[in-house]
Amino acid sequence: MLQETKEKVLRANLDLVKYHLVIFTWGNVSMRDPDTGYIVIKPSGVPYDEMKADYMVVLDGEGKRVEGNMKPSSDAPTHLVLYNHFREAGGIVHTHSEWATSWAQSGRNLPAYGTTHADYFYGEVPCTRKLTREEIERAYEVETGNVIAETFRKLDYRSVPGVLVYGHAPFTWGKDADEAVHNSVVLEEVAKMAFRTEVLGNRIPLDQFLLDKHYLRKHGKDAYYGQ
Amino acid sequence: MLQETKEKVLRANLDLVKYHLVIFTWGNVSMRDPDTGYIVIKPSGVPYDEMKADYMVVLDGEGKRVEGNMKPSSDAPTHLVLYNHFREAGGIVHTHSEWATSWAQSGRNLPAYGTTHADYFYGEVPCTRKLTREEIERAYEVETGNVIAETFRKLDYRSVPGVLVYGHAPFTWGKDADEAVHNSVVLEEVAKMAFRTEVLGNRIPLDQFLLDKHYLRKHGKDAYYGQ
Amino acid sequence: MLQETKEKVLRANLDLVKYHLVIFTWGNVSMRDPDTGYIVIKPSGVPYDEMKADYMVVLDGEGKRVEGNMKPSSDAPTHLVLYNHFREAGGIVHTHSEWATSWAQSGRNLPAYGTTHADYFYGEVPCTRKLTREEIERAYEVETGNVIAETFRKLDYRSVPGVLVYGHAPFTWGKDADEAVHNSVVLEEVAKMAFRTEVLGNRIPLDQFLLDKHYLRKHGKDAYYGQ
Amino acid sequence: MLQETKEKVLRANLDLVKYHLVIFTWGNVSMRDPDTGYIVIKPSGVPYDEMKADYMVVLDGEGKRVEGNMKPSSDAPTHLVLYNHFREAGGIVHTHSEWATSWAQSGRNLPAYGTTHADYFYGEVPCTRKLTREEIERAYEVETGNVIAETFRKLDYRSVPGVLVYGHAPFTWGKDADEAVHNSVVLEEVAKMAFRTEVLGNRIPLDQFLLDKHYLRKHGKDAYYGQ
Repeated sequence: MLQETKEKVLRANLDLVKYHLVIFTWGNVSMRDPDTGYIVIKPSGVPYDEMKADYMVVLDGEGKRVEGNMKPSSDAPTHLVLYNHFREAGGIVHTHSEWATSWAQSGRNLPAYGTTHADYFYGEVPCTRKLTREEIERAYEVETGNVIAETFRKLDYRSVPGVLVYGHAPFTWGKDADEAVHNSVVLEEVAKMAFRTEVLGNRIPLDQFLLDKHYLRKHGKDAYYGQ
Repeated sequence: MLQETKEKVLRANLDLVKYHLVIFTWGNVSMRDPDTGYIVIKPSGVPYDEMKADYMVVLDGEGKRVEGNMKPSSDAPTHLVLYNHFREAGGIVHTHSEWATSWAQSGRNLPAYGTTHADYFYGEVPCTRKLTREEIERAYEVETGNVIAETFRKLDYRSVPGVLVYGHAPFTWGKDADEAVHNSVVLEEVAKMAFRTEVLGNRIPLDQFLLDKHYLRKHGKDAYYGQ
Repeated sequence: MLQETKEKVLRANLDLVKYHLVIFTWGNVSMRDPDTGYIVIKPSGVPYDEMKADYMVVLDGEGKRVEGNMKPSSDAPTHLVLYNHFREAGGIVHTHSEWATSWAQSGRNLPAYGTTHADYFYGEVPCTRKLTREEIERAYEVETGNVIAETFRKLDYRSVPGVLVYGHAPFTWGKDADEAVHNSVVLEEVAKMAFRTEVLGNRIPLDQFLLDKHYLRKHGKDAYYGQ
Repeated sequence: MLQETKEKVLRANLDLVKYHLVIFTWGNVSMRDPDTGYIVIKPSGVPYDEMKADYMVVLDGEGKRVEGNMKPSSDAPTHLVLYNHFREAGGIVHTHSEWATSWAQSGRNLPAYGTTHADYFYGEVPCTRKLTREEIERAYEVETGNVIAETFRKLDYRSVPGVLVYGHAPFTWGKDADEAVHNSVVLEEVAKMAFRTEVLGNRIPLDQFLLDKHYLRKHGKDAYYGQ
């Protein structure tokens, strides 16, 4: 039901405001419609408090507009690249949330300093390399997607559902729009606590066996946590 | 009255949201029922805004479910170990509150830098040692309780009603669920101020005689403060 | 009108909550009644949301209760010492507000890094020396007042209406309860910005002639600012 | 319509409160009336919650009051100097917002560490030099305007719509009052994230070609972003 997906995407976009992840129009959520495979995404430049489900833009896999009268978010090309590489991702979120963006601006991977992190991200959340001048000038938004895909070449995007784009901001994903938003909230929270952990003097991440325990008790085949 | 205890536990769990100590379902409060000695605890994975008193799970001292249809919080085994060691504790709280968790992630004891701290915690709030791989793989939640108990072997849990679990997050306790929540709020506040105190250049805790004065004017036999 | 003063003191105490300067009962406002010279102060241990004007306690200059059934705030002896030394102070506030308290815990004077500070405090806000063991054991609250008075021996309390008590927290004052609360809000704001100014690398206070300009355009005999 | 401009100025001033950029009366917005060229500005010392459109003060280019019974903001002379130098600026905002003011107090230019910054400010946001004793004593508010104009002698105020005044606080501008407020919100957000970026260890600004891309995709002649 494409209509239902539009409503989910609308609500997920409004959740970005509720969770203080965006101001103005600085964020966007998209979702892969389970029936058609189309991508439903927030329109460009519309204030959150005026948005309606029917404003959501429907794109096919090449980015051609299938439904909707408005322009899709200018980050749509990045979302499309990610949906093509991350075949099981059903929802994607991009924000300029304050803590994750500060890490992205520092150009550093976000270390796994605690079990809060380990419950959602299996190891550090990577920061991409810088884009080259050529990439930026040729197809900036597409290349942003490509550099994320490149970052996950040897990393499982399903066990680390988020990334920091160098000098820019985070993207997260999940099985649908809601889970992608959830992961954005978590990323923001652990980015904040990691900052403070470092100021308090620790730069040593969790032991691998503790990472294993936390990730697997929640996501492994014998998961028993928070179900 | 078990019913009354369930309602207290419900309200105390909701207070975690009110005091901004938790997001999503990242926290849990339990209480020892004064009549039966049973432990009443939040169910696992239920959003705070849908919780009702009847969802609370009642466990006996071995963790067997006596009442309730839902699964207890996955941290229940930790709570049970603590109730067994801390015989006068009537309520226990676990959160991933942002400042206390940052200290737990740093692996450091929280020093007593000010009288706000000294009014509630008689000296530093300890951080446990790391759990070993074997402890984590054998019985993670039980061993989390054990390592807290070990930390208090030479420390009076009644005068220091809280702990930081290494790489994880805080636990606090009190005579009932409300007091345990109160101590969580205080721990968060003093963890925040201690962070800033250190950034401002001080790492020297209060004089012992000032610690004595503050703790004893509130908790000593001649207490006169805030009664 | 003592009744009017009680109502002002009540409202000023509630303003501490509104401005996020206190949690629980961690703060108190008093005021010198202009007619009688009596000191009206918050009662001890009463939650802010249950307080009424009639709960306010009226004390004479020696601290004897003249009106009211409740115990005065346990900080009343400190307030009384200050009213005796600072003859033009009509209102006094004590809080454990998070930023000013962090400075107090660091044991440092709060430097005047900006004009926001200079509009209210004519130079740095001093931090008292530590109290001695003897002072703490003999008459802790009275000696807290004395050490503040000592700090202002060579400093005009009218041009610097606030202080940090070493390892404890701030006190502020003003011509009445409202102005004292106002100065507490300002102290908190400038304490926060001073912290960040230092982290950004600056430890040099404003030039004296800029301090002069800001303080005098607001408080001098030719004041023209914000009137 | 001067009346319409007064209402816009009122609303823009109230937006400062909504966006948490001011407490008390610590901020002011003005706007150049498109019909008459007069400057409409907030009155001095009036609490935000009592302000009405008719309280707004109308000044001509020399600062003579054309309409209104109240005194203009004491920062009006600074606004007037800026309107005279920045001919296309239609709105100006001054606040003591906490993060931008902390940078102003540090005396440092705000580097462009991320694309959030680059979307609005084309390169670093400059900090003025210190004012001299003579400037401060002669005509403080006018000289504050002059030192801002001096700072932009070799910098395009249209591509960098904001400044930090040394030891004081930020000013921003835009095509009207709303855009000036919008730029104040952005400045605060990027000031906050830049602080954290530095604490995380990065002091290298974005590559020039990425600055170019972001600024030009939004403001260049082929702008396609957020329209």
